Amino acid sequence: MEIIPGSLLKTIDSPADLKKLPREKLHQVCDELRQYIIDVVSVYGGHFGASLGVVELTTALHYVYNTPYDQLVWDVGHQAYGHKILTGRRDNFISNRKYKGISGFPKRSESEYDTFGVGHSSTSISAALGMAMAAKYKGETDRRVVAIIGDGAMTAGLAFEGMNHAGVADTDLLIILNDNRMGIDPNVGALKEYLTDITISPTYNKVKDDVWKLLGKLPVGKHFTRAMAHKLVEGMKGMVSSSANLFEALKLRYFGPIDGHNVAKLVDTLKDLREIPGPKILHIITTKGKGYALAEKDQTKWHAPGLFDKVTGEIFKKTPDKPMPPKYQDVFGHTMVELAENNPKIVGITPAMPSGSSLNIMMKAMPDRAFDVGIAEQHAVTFSAGLATQGLVPFCNIYSSFLQRAYDQVIHDVALQKLPVVFCLDRGGLVGEDGATHQGEFDLAYLRVIPNMIVSAPMNEEELRNLMYTAQLEKTRAPFAIRYPRGEGVMPDWRKPLREIGIGKGRMICDGQDIAILSIGHPGNFVTEAMKDLRTLEIFPAHFDMRFVKPLDEELLHEVFTRFSRIITVEDGVIQGGFGSAILEFMSDHGYDAEVKRLGIPDKFIEHGSPRELYHECRFDDESIFETVKEMISSRVTVHH
Amino acid sequence: MEIIPGSLLKTIDSPADLKKLPREKLHQVCDELRQYIIDVVSVYGGHFGASLGVVELTTALHYVYNTPYDQLVWDVGHQAYGHKILTGRRDNFISNRKYKGISGFPKRSESEYDTFGVGHSSTSISAALGMAMAAKYKGETDRRVVAIIGDGAMTAGLAFEGMNHAGVADTDLLIILNDNRMGIDPNVGALKEYLTDITISPTYNKVKDDVWKLLGKLPVGKHFTRAMAHKLVEGMKGMVSSSANLFEALKLRYFGPIDGHNVAKLVDTLKDLREIPGPKILHIITTKGKGYALAEKDQTKWHAPGLFDKVTGEIFKKTPDKPMPPKYQDVFGHTMVELAENNPKIVGITPAMPSGSSLNIMMKAMPDRAFDVGIAEQHAVTFSAGLATQGLVPFCNIYSSFLQRAYDQVIHDVALQKLPVVFCLDRGGLVGEDGATHQGEFDLAYLRVIPNMIVSAPMNEEELRNLMYTAQLEKTRAPFAIRYPRGEGVMPDWRKPLREIGIGKGRMICDGQDIAILSIGHPGNFVTEAMKDLRTLEIFPAHFDMRFVKPLDEELLHEVFTRFSRIITVEDGVIQGGFGSAILEFMSDHGYDAEVKRLGIPDKFIEHGSPRELYHECRFDDESIFETVKEMISSRVTVHH
Repeated sequence: MEIIPGSLLKTIDSPADLKKLPREKLHQVCDELRQYIIDVVSVYGGHFGASLGVVELTTALHYVYNTPYDQLVWDVGHQAYGHKILTGRRDNFISNRKYKGISGFPKRSESEYDTFGVGHSSTSISAALGMAMAAKYKGETDRRVVAIIGDGAMTAGLAFEGMNHAGVADTDLLIILNDNRMGIDPNVGALKEYLTDITISPTYNKVKDDVWKLLGKLPVGKHFTRAMAHKLVEGMKGMVSSSANLFEALKLRYFGPIDGHNVAKLVDTLKDLREIPGPKILHIITTKGKGYALAEKDQTKWHAPGLFDKVTGEIFKKTPDKPMPPKYQDVFGHTMVELAENNPKIVGITPAMPSGSSLNIMMKAMPDRAFDVGIAEQHAVTFSAGLATQGLVPFCNIYSSFLQRAYDQVIHDVALQKLPVVFCLDRGGLVGEDGATHQGEFDLAYLRVIPNMIVSAPMNEEELRNLMYTAQLEKTRAPFAIRYPRGEGVMPDWRKPLREIGIGKGRMICDGQDIAILSIGHPGNFVTEAMKDLRTLEIFPAHFDMRFVKPLDEELLHEVFTRFSRIITVEDGVIQGGFGSAILEFMSDHGYDAEVKRLGIPDKFIEHGSPRELYHECRFDDESIFETVKEMISSRVTVHH
Repeated sequence: MEIIPGSLLKTIDSPADLKKLPREKLHQVCDELRQYIIDVVSVYGGHFGASLGVVELTTALHYVYNTPYDQLVWDVGHQAYGHKILTGRRDNFISNRKYKGISGFPKRSESEYDTFGVGHSSTSISAALGMAMAAKYKGETDRRVVAIIGDGAMTAGLAFEGMNHAGVADTDLLIILNDNRMGIDPNVGALKEYLTDITISPTYNKVKDDVWKLLGKLPVGKHFTRAMAHKLVEGMKGMVSSSANLFEALKLRYFGPIDGHNVAKLVDTLKDLREIPGPKILHIITTKGKGYALAEKDQTKWHAPGLFDKVTGEIFKKTPDKPMPPKYQDVFGHTMVELAENNPKIVGITPAMPSGSSLNIMMKAMPDRAFDVGIAEQHAVTFSAGLATQGLVPFCNIYSSFLQRAYDQVIHDVALQKLPVVFCLDRGGLVGEDGATHQGEFDLAYLRVIPNMIVSAPMNEEELRNLMYTAQLEKTRAPFAIRYPRGEGVMPDWRKPLREIGIGKGRMICDGQDIAILSIGHPGNFVTEAMKDLRTLEIFPAHFDMRFVKPLDEELLHEVFTRFSRIITVEDGVIQGGFGSAILEFMSDHGYDAEVKRLGIPDKFIEHGSPRELYHECRFDDESIFETVKEMISSRVTVHH
């Protein structure tokens, strides 16, 4: 379906074209840009609300700043659609997030306007400060650097670390705080409340001006001497100048808040700020989903709504003709409530992903036992460790690729102390359209090297439930990771009775001959599919679902290596260092000798595409498993004849 | 040597004994506690300045709070010596940091008074909030939780994440900010300047009181009406009440600053605060090294001075009778300057470890090209990535175990974008006395799974220099990790000319027969030692220093696996997932068949002790290598006869 850009937008192939327009035309550019985003995303999918919220900011930035020489650093990046459209990717934009298409996030290899690749939040201030520091060191005094960060991303420690340095680094960095009170879900925390305070209370800067004005009018007389007035003014100065504002306390000059949807005002403000030296922050107020009424109203739902009818606002859902398997996420969410109802020690923690992880089901059912701590993975883990010291069993749900943010906390605060924190790692494996930044591919490898950890991955919904059940048992009490993918499982009828799984116990899915396939997690289902086709060729490998990467089921493995000399391992994680590598270690340690073929994610970053496309690219989908078995069988035939 | 505690201190076997004393006696307890720390540390070694600085605070906390029911959470933990001495570990304290002795840090398994294990910084607020939240959930309304954190630790993002949650979590958490303007080196950053502002400027709270008082005296008349006065007061309130202080902006009630060396004042203040509900922060000012003049004067040197004469202050140094090898740290520091003099693109970054890493040599020589960013590993890496986008070559020096804090930044901000950041990973391998929290044991395993990374470890000083030289070459330009241990190398004459090493190229140290030993990094020297003894038995294994864990030297490995069927791998990292595991993957991928014995750190956390004791415990010291070779040889003999 062809999407026609508006009359002005279609003339803008780069910011140079935008700059030719008079300021009065920018309003129309914004309207057309917004419409184009609505048109494309409704038909082709993608993130939605965030980009609508920064249409005016995006336009103003490219109008005022000399991009790409000046560096714009977008935080998180799913608000950068307008930026992409204005910087030469308008027509290509329909390939957004598609296999081999443009990325849903800024990406350095895609455009010189994309100064820093993102996907994870809160990197912009640090990266931008690095750029500004380099400009200073190289004497590029005319170069400007701007970080654009949301209030949600501002809660992560990395953003604070960046500000703490930026405040004392003598560069011209501008931080734009895009305050829409949202991450994917509503933002939480003290900082958010503070931002609301200084926005809602009579405008902070105006009060400041008024107070100074009134102080200037102080009547000096017998009861109120000049000395007293002086003392008052000086005292006020001491209190107000350096510390009246959180950001000014951190030595960032604070400007705002201003309306982030007034493009003319933004242009004027940015022109002024461009000339003000030193580190500074501009606080703008925007509405996520701005300009699309339904998206403004239900911002979480419209963060990334999928395809929809842009006129009626109807979000298209597949209407299945038979019962469909649930999302792993919903199985997690409902099972949390089920377990917590029976075990008062269970609490739930999510860093800013209540809806994404489905912990919101528990947050609604048991508000005092489920915590959204904001974008703060490190804190989520150490807070969980603190809860665990008091005898509770925290289920800490973090997306696999975001747990990379809390690796030290897993090692130092949980595993070293053997605290019974249950890590439910959502979005394990290849996540699809979000691409390289979000693939949950390293977790099995980086977790299995940690002493005391139990590392598991369920093959289906029932296994997920049983692993969760097992993790919270009194006798388990150990750091326990349960890692599962994004999206649907395989069991429409998933609500089976809960039962214990032996720690480190795998299971035989089917016995066979010649070749043993050892799988971990959801890709076990790809093996099951491949087996169907292999049977038609009268090839009958054995299939074992190992369930645990750590501890390994050594009893089962002794049996496997005794009976089989050809082994295929299958995982949706990196093959260097991952599950297959653990199998090689077992083999070496016990003196077995077998031909082992490891299937999984190869040693390169995997870009975006549908999960199926990516499984195939990585060669561990059912077709690839089928081919691998056939090759292994025929290579044996060759040897023996 | 027996250390005699003072007359009061020797009666204190637990905080219960302390509580029996009248408040007037606490001053004497503090004097004796300080003296005891000086006596023990001067003779037995350990951290010094930090514990001296909190003698009064420690005494006051255990006097006022109902420990261990109330939970004291010490951040970092090297200031907890006084705490250990007052909580039943006085006589045991001479075993501090010794093999099988008590830990230099709080440790849950050591004492019920140690509520949370530490070593890495900035975890206390999150952990304490977890404890406080658990107490609230369990209805333990009489239980109090106190986090004690330094201003240095406060700069790390995790601390901010904890505050952002604490400010809106309805618990009675008290955070004590122990402001001594120091980490190991002087603290840096905007927060530190802010704390200085509110401390040095006429005491903040006093000013606030004065201002209110003066406002109350405002003379109302013709020119300054009641309405104006009202407006002024209200405006002031709006500015001051919620936002006049950084911590109050984060919804933490702020108290202080007060003198942290006035034990009576501390007791009174803590008694008051114990009864004030809600989240709050007490800002105390202390002097690191308090009570020992030299330590107060040169705080970095006296952070952990080694053994010293407590009377003269002379720090004992070994006086070697022959030229000694330098520390790897100093080789790094001097080589940085040498390289940077010839390559203007090189800059240096350290997160708060200028003296520990020896980057201070460059900071002194080239102050505009070397950055101490404070305790902020995440920022250090992403800031480096930002610098690298502008064509610079940042050398980011981070202790191995602290890089765990920035794992996501290495993956997401550096490796994914193939930015040429050089990670110099100090304290790789077993660090010794600092123990389990500080062992740099996971790095080879967690880095080698990341695409685009080059992962190397030098066997000696010359190799370190050559790897650094290679990493900064224009043609290299890739994420490049160089990982080396704490302490001395092996080459007294280390300042060799710099030369390039081929990326992924290992080297043969000596050829041999029957067995090939593949080593990575410094433990190659243990192999060299073992070889000497093996030669006396007429056993001649070959020895290869692989230099790179990634990419592996495949050419060399093909040669090795073609010629040898018995292989020993040696590394000072975890054997699950590490270097030896990479060798197994190579072997499997290329269809080789060999007996492989992997030596390295086993799958358990390794406690404190001297490096040699720990190498031996882990079975990869020269003696263990010698034994392993002998066993492998004799097992072959058995097979063949």
